[in-house]
Amino acid sequence: MVYVTRRETFSASHRLYNPKLTEEQNVELFDKCANPNGHGHNYVLEVTVVGNPEQDTGYVIDLKDLKQLVRSEIIQKVDHKHLNHDVDFLKGTIPTSENIARAFWEILQSKIRGARLFSIRLRETENNSVEYRGETS
Amino acid sequence: MVYVTRRETFSASHRLYNPKLTEEQNVELFDKCANPNGHGHNYVLEVTVVGNPEQDTGYVIDLKDLKQLVRSEIIQKVDHKHLNHDVDFLKGTIPTSENIARAFWEILQSKIRGARLFSIRLRETENNSVEYRGETS
Amino acid sequence: MVYVTRRETFSASHRLYNPKLTEEQNVELFDKCANPNGHGHNYVLEVTVVGNPEQDTGYVIDLKDLKQLVRSEIIQKVDHKHLNHDVDFLKGTIPTSENIARAFWEILQSKIRGARLFSIRLRETENNSVEYRGETS
Amino acid sequence: MVYVTRRETFSASHRLYNPKLTEEQNVELFDKCANPNGHGHNYVLEVTVVGNPEQDTGYVIDLKDLKQLVRSEIIQKVDHKHLNHDVDFLKGTIPTSENIARAFWEILQSKIRGARLFSIRLRETENNSVEYRGETS
Amino acid sequence: MVYVTRRETFSASHRLYNPKLTEEQNVELFDKCANPNGHGHNYVLEVTVVGNPEQDTGYVIDLKDLKQLVRSEIIQKVDHKHLNHDVDFLKGTIPTSENIARAFWEILQSKIRGARLFSIRLRETENNSVEYRGETS
Amino acid sequence: MVYVTRRETFSASHRLYNPKLTEEQNVELFDKCANPNGHGHNYVLEVTVVGNPEQDTGYVIDLKDLKQLVRSEIIQKVDHKHLNHDVDFLKGTIPTSENIARAFWEILQSKIRGARLFSIRLRETENNSVEYRGETS
Repeated sequence: MVYVTRRETFSASHRLYNPKLTEEQNVELFDKCANPNGHGHNYVLEVTVVGNPEQDTGYVIDLKDLKQLVRSEIIQKVDHKHLNHDVDFLKGTIPTSENIARAFWEILQSKIRGARLFSIRLRETENNSVEYRGETS
Repeated sequence: MVYVTRRETFSASHRLYNPKLTEEQNVELFDKCANPNGHGHNYVLEVTVVGNPEQDTGYVIDLKDLKQLVRSEIIQKVDHKHLNHDVDFLKGTIPTSENIARAFWEILQSKIRGARLFSIRLRETENNSVEYRGETS
Repeated sequence: MVYVTRRETFSASHRLYNPKLTEEQNVELFDKCANPNGHGHNYVLEVTVVGNPEQDTGYVIDLKDLKQLVRSEIIQKVDHKHLNHDVDFLKGTIPTSENIARAFWEILQSKIRGARLFSIRLRETENNSVEYRGETS
Repeated sequence: MVYVTRRETFSASHRLYNPKLTEEQNVELFDKCANPNGHGHNYVLEVTVVGNPEQDTGYVIDLKDLKQLVRSEIIQKVDHKHLNHDVDFLKGTIPTSENIARAFWEILQSKIRGARLFSIRLRETENNSVEYRGETS
Repeated sequence: MVYVTRRETFSASHRLYNPKLTEEQNVELFDKCANPNGHGHNYVLEVTVVGNPEQDTGYVIDLKDLKQLVRSEIIQKVDHKHLNHDVDFLKGTIPTSENIARAFWEILQSKIRGARLFSIRLRETENNSVEYRGETS
Repeated sequence: MVYVTRRETFSASHRLYNPKLTEEQNVELFDKCANPNGHGHNYVLEVTVVGNPEQDTGYVIDLKDLKQLVRSEIIQKVDHKHLNHDVDFLKGTIPTSENIARAFWEILQSKIRGARLFSIRLRETENNSVEYRGETS
């Protein structure tokens, strides 16, 4: 079994805000991330699949196919968008990296063919990143 | 003369939109950057000053002082902000990297002591960046 | 469960030297790393915790809290220091990356609240790094 | 147990082509990677071993020894080479990253002393990489 | 005046070889770069133009246009190619980084509209790079 | 004319301290950089030369020769060393990046053959760097 990773990037804005809480609670929880007009990031997304290389191709998965899938299912829907307002599959979700990574996992898991989705890694800044592997505690 | 560069980062959102033009013209000019809800970036700012190292310190400028100046005059005002709405010195400006770099130059030029501001470099994404050196054509 | 990583950096000097061995043995073992006056690195530290995002925040852990903890418990004690002489919790330890990573683990493990420490990764140079996950063989 | 990683780079050319298939099938499978004259990459190789630090040295493995081993057994044989034509241990293999990583594993696994080989990571471009841990499905 | 830079990447193979010289001379000059089967790189290309931002757009140049130009005129012709055999505009040229950068300059200089080409920077590896600014000594 | 850059790295320790000043003045000037036991960095050195590519080789300079020169004249003398104590050509100098870059310039300027030294760039951390081009104000 070999792990194969495709890296893509997108630029988006978001605001961390829980509508069930008061303004004061939101500012206390999310600090400058709760700024009403939002802010943004160049997100780096790494999608890792795992499987056995096929004899005929030496590929676990054709990375051109994986690239196309990630771009059509994810990147086109989030790039140059506001994650709170413009993205159907994030509606009603606080767009933390943790929640975004899990949403991406749900989308890709059923669509990847011939290999198994292993990990979604999302880097929000050069210092902060998350990884989701589909594990439940 | 030695060139000394300090690198800082900030995360902000913006929208490229010229209110003097129609919606159609804005979309044609700015494409997905004109998305009404905006998008965002992790900007990388590099401020370069030039001068002669002082005999007593071996420093052109104390980088702690330059760091503090850049943070108090620039980073605090743009980090986790929407560049179209939240930043006084960008009001009425289309927040392209070109315009942001020139605005940063105007702020820092008069405040740097003991050395001369040489260049403002601003990286919007890993593929797109600008540099302003105070030159007029 | 989601893995959340915070990256911090520090600049320190060290010398690899085992006082129980002779000079010759130290030079044979540690080569130029045994140079009596020491040398130094820009270390990159990545602290990874794992847990379930909370419903109210979408956070596994508030990264501002993790950042503060790592800075107050680790970075302030090792940044711009000599790891053999200036750091209480490394006294009597040969400051290899392996030993430093394990020392950082011991400090952070008991202090992280609301999530579980998963990994300490320490990059000494762009080519050499270690990772410790609290495993015993 | 601590994981220790050494990073090395090499520049090589290759062509993805399966001689058992027709030209048309090769182009359909491998697209521009099947270009008859080949193309090339700056590969980044990360070799990770795992073990217990020795009491006397604080080392899992002497990274100078691991560096020498990786350079003499791998880098010297693939750097500035054409992977389809110039490398004995890749003869008869389609040189995908998956197959190269497994070939490197076979070479290193038996030669590493005092620690256990844990992972071979190979980055072909900044967007595409693979990792092999010796696992069979 | 503001400098605007677009970064693109391509993967190609090449061989450094001067057909006017003997095999021995080629090996002495180019060492392992003269290997008959060639080798390859992930090249990083940075194209910098300079000009005055337009009032209506805040752009020196529309980076979407520059991206398209660089991709259609350069990247499509060199990506996944052998620079000695597959590229018309490099025929008869020893494909050193110096010569490639100058060839790119010649192509782009006359095709960029609304701004002036300032620099072609080409990184062959993480340690070796060249820059050409159209200067004659 | 083409600019050619070679990048090398070294790991060293230093202390910023002016023996002509009092302890208090040193701490005020250099803050934590004046810590008596010193600290260290992974320095990144970029040496740029400029010249005309030769007809026969397509090279401004043979980068293998430049690499050897930089390694024998600079890297071997500073890598894994304490810059205040172990380096003859820095004796009596406060080892700030500015002063180190100028010392490297003096050494290399007279020894580079066939091209002209254009710039010494020295990165002390990912945020702080200097460049010296041999200019006097």
